[in-house]
Amino acid sequence: MDISSYIREKASLARAAADALAVMSEDVKNAALLYMADALEKGRDAILAANAEDVEKARASGLAAAMVDRLTLTPERFNSMVAGVRHVVTLPDPVGVELAKTDRPSGITIRKVRVPIGVIAVVFESRPNVFVDTAALCLKAGNAVVLRGGKEALKTNSALAECVRGALSVPDAVQFIDITDHEAVSEIVRCTGLVDLAIPRGGERLVRAMCEAALVPVLKHYKGVCHIYVDDKADFAMALSILDNAKTQRPGVCNAAECLLLHEAIEPMFMPMVKAWAADKGVVLHGPARSGDEGQDWEHEFLALEMNVGVVKNVGEAISHINRYGSHHSDCIVTADAARASEFLRSVDSAAVYHNVSTRFTDGSEFGMGAEIGISTDKLHARGPMGLEELTTYKYEVTGDGVVRG
Amino acid sequence: MDISSYIREKASLARAAADALAVMSEDVKNAALLYMADALEKGRDAILAANAEDVEKARASGLAAAMVDRLTLTPERFNSMVAGVRHVVTLPDPVGVELAKTDRPSGITIRKVRVPIGVIAVVFESRPNVFVDTAALCLKAGNAVVLRGGKEALKTNSALAECVRGALSVPDAVQFIDITDHEAVSEIVRCTGLVDLAIPRGGERLVRAMCEAALVPVLKHYKGVCHIYVDDKADFAMALSILDNAKTQRPGVCNAAECLLLHEAIEPMFMPMVKAWAADKGVVLHGPARSGDEGQDWEHEFLALEMNVGVVKNVGEAISHINRYGSHHSDCIVTADAARASEFLRSVDSAAVYHNVSTRFTDGSEFGMGAEIGISTDKLHARGPMGLEELTTYKYEVTGDGVVRG
Repeated sequence: MDISSYIREKASLARAAADALAVMSEDVKNAALLYMADALEKGRDAILAANAEDVEKARASGLAAAMVDRLTLTPERFNSMVAGVRHVVTLPDPVGVELAKTDRPSGITIRKVRVPIGVIAVVFESRPNVFVDTAALCLKAGNAVVLRGGKEALKTNSALAECVRGALSVPDAVQFIDITDHEAVSEIVRCTGLVDLAIPRGGERLVRAMCEAALVPVLKHYKGVCHIYVDDKADFAMALSILDNAKTQRPGVCNAAECLLLHEAIEPMFMPMVKAWAADKGVVLHGPARSGDEGQDWEHEFLALEMNVGVVKNVGEAISHINRYGSHHSDCIVTADAARASEFLRSVDSAAVYHNVSTRFTDGSEFGMGAEIGISTDKLHARGPMGLEELTTYKYEVTGDGVVRG
Repeated sequence: MDISSYIREKASLARAAADALAVMSEDVKNAALLYMADALEKGRDAILAANAEDVEKARASGLAAAMVDRLTLTPERFNSMVAGVRHVVTLPDPVGVELAKTDRPSGITIRKVRVPIGVIAVVFESRPNVFVDTAALCLKAGNAVVLRGGKEALKTNSALAECVRGALSVPDAVQFIDITDHEAVSEIVRCTGLVDLAIPRGGERLVRAMCEAALVPVLKHYKGVCHIYVDDKADFAMALSILDNAKTQRPGVCNAAECLLLHEAIEPMFMPMVKAWAADKGVVLHGPARSGDEGQDWEHEFLALEMNVGVVKNVGEAISHINRYGSHHSDCIVTADAARASEFLRSVDSAAVYHNVSTRFTDGSEFGMGAEIGISTDKLHARGPMGLEELTTYKYEVTGDGVVRG
């Protein structure tokens, strides 16, 4: 069978399963998730053995140590993956929630009700726990899922797929694509009528390739170029504390700060403190340079102990800088001035805008979603952290007693 | 200048205007809309003269009479277009509405707030009132708009653009693309970072071409293949009344019924009534045939006094038929049985599902939205009628007192 037919067959099976899942009660879905968690525990040895084979092959092929680490399913990671499935059971089912209800003068009653999206395709890279996390969240929200992982994790993902599918009364709700050709990904995102949404969980190259090929909607996260703007009305101790948290607490994540912006009036006073902090924490600073200075790559995402420093003349220039060079992810103003804070919060066009709070809070758990499937830097459908609600859509249920339009 | 640079320049101007619009107060936006309405009235003669030129050229080129009619801006249509702008002034501004607010244990407060989408590109076909309707709705929701109309309406749209832009304090908020090459449309939907959303308002061919080329999200309406399923527990008089309304009240629109499905038990009794009704109203019936019968084109959108008739063995088969052959737009069950109605409403995967109500109600005004920019058959972001709220997204405003993540 060619790749296209193979992918379409899997997507069609998912489509049919989605119809069954859409009307499944919360109890039945939770029972399925608990079965899944039990099955993973029973399958532990087989899964870890498959993972060991992947890891060995990756090492032999010279894959970078950091990548090998991401690929490795340690016993602790395995446990936390299974605990993650059990945690999803405890989250409220978003499906069926009434979002609005109106009685119209025409005599009809309109209920806007939350429903599953249908079939969600998720393409991910090396970390195998993504397979299980994603399957659990999609199922809880009543969606079927088509999963395609990286080639280095093929044996692990195959073992996970066998285990997860074996635990489900509707095994077709989870489809695993074991074709590692790039063509498989292009095919998945062209399955209009079968796949309702595609989510890339990986680097910028994967995201761009999927968007380029896609005919179905793609919800994506390009990158996190987050800013901390320190106003001249800022408390310096607070500013340093937020800067430190946003840059150093976990530098490799998307909500870490990549650019510090300073009000020009405080540069002489505050910059020495920043330099002392950077020296202490081993942070490499690029700048300070005037905002817009062409010598600086303002759009760079370091994901390391390294950051740009820009000088602006006021909050207005900070806002323009962020809207121009940022990634619409998470940006912060540190100031004691309420009016400037309000201007910043209103004008910065990002998923999450912060006043006197570290950008590191852009996260499903910190936002109270319980779990997240990713963070969207898109503006449509879902923006920022995506939890169970963001894996649903709505429909209108309209009732009446033989009402016709006049 | 080549087409690509020209389009990107217009989109960049819209992008800059969008930042200004995003923070504009409701009063200022309403004043701008009233100026716009006044300017259109003042420009009436020039606009109607431009339209007369377009109409004459279209007639001379042999454009079909129905198309010429759609292109024609009669004095009545002109007045209702201007009244439409004034009506938008009366609708509540969706921007700034707080959708949710949470205090988290970490000490942060999260407000989820409605904000404009940014830059919306709308590609439309012959009816010139779409230019003004779309501009008014997008502006009220705080968005800049890039408009591209059909080539047969070029002079009319140019006159409208001049008039509308002249009335605005931020004229760049409305960009008119006067290039009629298809390439212009492909370029618009590839402006990532500049255009946030593209909406086709036209036939299936335009929609497919835009989706094929797009890198930016597209919200679309493919077609309306709406069903009326008459259950064996239906009141026949009610069923006929709904059928009549859904098929004949305005057969050329997307929420008109294109397929009647009958429970097999009522075929002998009810089909003669349907035939009598069809003969009386001049409706051509294709069928009855068993659902799935390959002789019938079940996915056809007639947009005329013509429809398919299918026979199913129960509500379950009706649901499967609709999910398989329908367009996820609007579908109705006529029954006195509450359990079957509930099953139908839950299981049919359409934007609007009806119980004992005509499908003709899928409409922004009937749904209480005040006005609509179109009806989405997509599942993401907006489903069904799209009013002002559907032209917005949200952001998270997070505040605290120097809170950092532990």
